[in-house]
Amino acid sequence: MSKLRVSSFAVSIDGYGAGPSQDLDNPLGIGGVALMEWFFPTRTWQHMHGNAGGETGVDDDIAAHGLAGIGAWILGRNMFGPIRGSWADESWRGWWGEEPPYHTPVFVLTHHARPPLRMAGGTEFRFVTDGIQAALQQARDAAGDRDIRLGGGVSTIRQYLRAGLIDELHLAIRPVVLGTGEALFAGLDLPALGYETARYVPGVRATHVFLRKRAP
Amino acid sequence: MSKLRVSSFAVSIDGYGAGPSQDLDNPLGIGGVALMEWFFPTRTWQHMHGNAGGETGVDDDIAAHGLAGIGAWILGRNMFGPIRGSWADESWRGWWGEEPPYHTPVFVLTHHARPPLRMAGGTEFRFVTDGIQAALQQARDAAGDRDIRLGGGVSTIRQYLRAGLIDELHLAIRPVVLGTGEALFAGLDLPALGYETARYVPGVRATHVFLRKRAP
Repeated sequence: MSKLRVSSFAVSIDGYGAGPSQDLDNPLGIGGVALMEWFFPTRTWQHMHGNAGGETGVDDDIAAHGLAGIGAWILGRNMFGPIRGSWADESWRGWWGEEPPYHTPVFVLTHHARPPLRMAGGTEFRFVTDGIQAALQQARDAAGDRDIRLGGGVSTIRQYLRAGLIDELHLAIRPVVLGTGEALFAGLDLPALGYETARYVPGVRATHVFLRKRAP
Repeated sequence: MSKLRVSSFAVSIDGYGAGPSQDLDNPLGIGGVALMEWFFPTRTWQHMHGNAGGETGVDDDIAAHGLAGIGAWILGRNMFGPIRGSWADESWRGWWGEEPPYHTPVFVLTHHARPPLRMAGGTEFRFVTDGIQAALQQARDAAGDRDIRLGGGVSTIRQYLRAGLIDELHLAIRPVVLGTGEALFAGLDLPALGYETARYVPGVRATHVFLRKRAP
């Protein structure tokens, strides 16, 4: 069966997966951009954004691997945009312009229904209002035998972890302190939820830790 | 002036510096030994315990550096032993046998007075009942121009961090999850307290992150 996995999700050493006060100017929260500074220099990220060049090496290999074999994505509503509450209109079409870097169906968790949004390059945002299990089932149906990638954010990952639904969790531990923001681990007992370290790969700008769910 | 520094202090990726329920059988708390598994194989640790051999390399270099140039130590009371409350008698002489690996004065924070305890090899435990500032002043007087190492545990390090008294903090980030225990970062805003990353060195069994206090 296809796996539900989190890949390339960056966390500070003090456990924050985003800075505080996300808005249009700070999609990763204030100071949160420091979390992504391992990813921006990679060839994978540069190519996603239409640029030539970029660094190769461990960080790039792992970033590329995280994108391979994905048949559907799941995103929390705040990963899709900074708007809260009901959709005032349908003018917000994501952070990524007309050709988002997903190229698959993307299931967006929200409490507010909205028609699907077909973008260039094969991405289609589908808005799911009946919870994380329903989104996972729809993503499984769409992905076939490919994997499903859970993009985040922190609150969404925590919900799926608590439910024990994530099969693999790759964290890029960034050697920075944020001090405040969205805490990934607070109050979550990952060993009790069945997670253990499968692999540890030091990179140039992050330390990569792969957690997996033990077989029941 | 000599520095107050924390060295080789291990933390899990979910932010625990010790497991829960420390006692005589679990000096690092339940599961806490996983935090130290980067240190045990090093030549530095093996030599401290009278053994030949041990691994050299990044982890060992950093462990050795943490022990160099130290003129005094400060320990929280639980680092000295598992006894809580008043000293029933003076039979507890630390975890380390008759020749502890400090070889300097060691200032132990406690609410319960006790006469100094002179051990073999130059270690003398001195019990300080008037707080972290007093312990630091006594340690400075003892250390001269050498540095003072703050050994831990988590609660003691947090007290000194909140007071902005630590100059350098080396954390050995272990690629494990503990899920429960003594949380190092919870509720501490290290950037607001003046701390930033000075250096990041990936090791074989831990990722070494050096935080320093910015000049005021």
